[in-house]
Amino acid sequence: MMIECVPNFSEGARPGVIEAIVARVRAESGVRVLDLQSDASHNRSVLTLAGDAESLLRGVLALVGACVTTIDLRTQRGEHPRMGAVDVVPFIPLEGATIADCVSLARRAGEAIAKAHNIPVFLYEDAASAPHRKGLEDIRRGQFEGLATKLKDPLWRPDFGPVEPHPSFGAVVVGARMPLIAFNVNLATDDVEIAKKIAKGIRHSTGGYRFVKAMGLIVDINGRKVAQVSMNMTDFTKTPLFRVVETIRNEAARHGVAIAGSEIVGLVPAQALVDAAEHYLQLTGFTSSQVLETRLRTE
Amino acid sequence: MMIECVPNFSEGARPGVIEAIVARVRAESGVRVLDLQSDASHNRSVLTLAGDAESLLRGVLALVGACVTTIDLRTQRGEHPRMGAVDVVPFIPLEGATIADCVSLARRAGEAIAKAHNIPVFLYEDAASAPHRKGLEDIRRGQFEGLATKLKDPLWRPDFGPVEPHPSFGAVVVGARMPLIAFNVNLATDDVEIAKKIAKGIRHSTGGYRFVKAMGLIVDINGRKVAQVSMNMTDFTKTPLFRVVETIRNEAARHGVAIAGSEIVGLVPAQALVDAAEHYLQLTGFTSSQVLETRLRTE
Repeated sequence: MMIECVPNFSEGARPGVIEAIVARVRAESGVRVLDLQSDASHNRSVLTLAGDAESLLRGVLALVGACVTTIDLRTQRGEHPRMGAVDVVPFIPLEGATIADCVSLARRAGEAIAKAHNIPVFLYEDAASAPHRKGLEDIRRGQFEGLATKLKDPLWRPDFGPVEPHPSFGAVVVGARMPLIAFNVNLATDDVEIAKKIAKGIRHSTGGYRFVKAMGLIVDINGRKVAQVSMNMTDFTKTPLFRVVETIRNEAARHGVAIAGSEIVGLVPAQALVDAAEHYLQLTGFTSSQVLETRLRTE
Repeated sequence: MMIECVPNFSEGARPGVIEAIVARVRAESGVRVLDLQSDASHNRSVLTLAGDAESLLRGVLALVGACVTTIDLRTQRGEHPRMGAVDVVPFIPLEGATIADCVSLARRAGEAIAKAHNIPVFLYEDAASAPHRKGLEDIRRGQFEGLATKLKDPLWRPDFGPVEPHPSFGAVVVGARMPLIAFNVNLATDDVEIAKKIAKGIRHSTGGYRFVKAMGLIVDINGRKVAQVSMNMTDFTKTPLFRVVETIRNEAARHGVAIAGSEIVGLVPAQALVDAAEHYLQLTGFTSSQVLETRLRTE
């Protein structure tokens, strides 16, 4: 059973500190560190880990232990909103694991973190204990600075741990979700309004596809301003990449604009790309057991 | 180092015989049997194996040993042309292996087969000892029945083994090639001439893409006659599926016909589908190290 864990922690500027934190995670046997992305202006890092449930539990506890001593939100500042020195810990099912396995693991991890360090823990997404607490943005609203007040609200009683913030660490959000794909589509225009209109049409919150979060923004590519539809695909198995791309293509054409290119940021499950190929190549009767590498893994 | 081997042997009608043959292969440690396809009217089976070089060498020798005692081409008849009780043994590079590794393995296997059973062996494709001996169809022309005569021709001196056919087994063709994808495109028409014209335009032999073999034929799908472009994609890394599909689409449109669907027969390397997704989704800067499962395998 392989599970992925993508903890975000609130240090992205001091390389030595980041390295020391990650080293504590690497030291846990069975934890594989697949990726590390740090952003100095966000002052935030994103770790991608994989392993079985027990290894990840140890890895996450090691991460929290390292951050509790090296990150102090009373002085930490950055572009990215944060509530905790470790801000969010999602568990994601991979080969042989289910979302239910990840929900169980999230609850165990949440309880263990609260116990070990007296840190308030909120469960989110598929592990959430109430509907209003599913979304990360909703839980994190108010950030570290607003935490003391928020924790007093009965709607925001933590799932584990004390009703006071940890004085330097804050609080942490732990949960389970399907793999998320960070996917951007660049339009052949510098008109950001077109990207914003398109984003409004495809994101769930304003009437679009169920498992799409999107916004339109201007990015700089090789010195040129490019309008971009920036997305988080929150369940590619239900809302596939190809359907959204074709909708963007259609909506952009209505504005006389083509898709210039697209990009996937970070990791993408092979299945998302296989599904796209199956769609565009018009395959019939195709199953992923026909993928050689899948057959090698499972036979 | 993982290598694939796809031996074809000349029994497809007697399930008990097929099972006994495959059991001898399975008994070799380190050999993974990924797939078995048998066709009674062809009277032929296709085995898909994977393993390291040493395991596959033992597996192929076990296969030849089993077929030498159970298949007799003097009485075997079927739709598919054949020269040997084991007809062809291609080795194909997978993870961590190169085509050169497979050429070496083909030579070792050819020599071992000849030695063990006094069977003439021809090397083909990337292992071929002369240009006119690269193609399987050219080597096999004349089949089992024409072998005695063919072997006397200096152009067809075997690479290993005697200058006489094995009396019941015949001869075997052994070699190395890139993964082959059996890929069919069904057109929304029953006019086979359209499929034949399109096939002629896309296959290498008559002016088309370098790594495409194709023919147009009529198939029966749920009782309806459908014109099909049936292809072997002989190096998808050089001539990708998506380019050929789009050419077929364009050529079919010139005849007022659409692509109804397509199918992949058997196994396909994930990379071929990832390449298609990358093309259709217009991804930029994408590398296969961004595929989660690849990252898990290599990190």
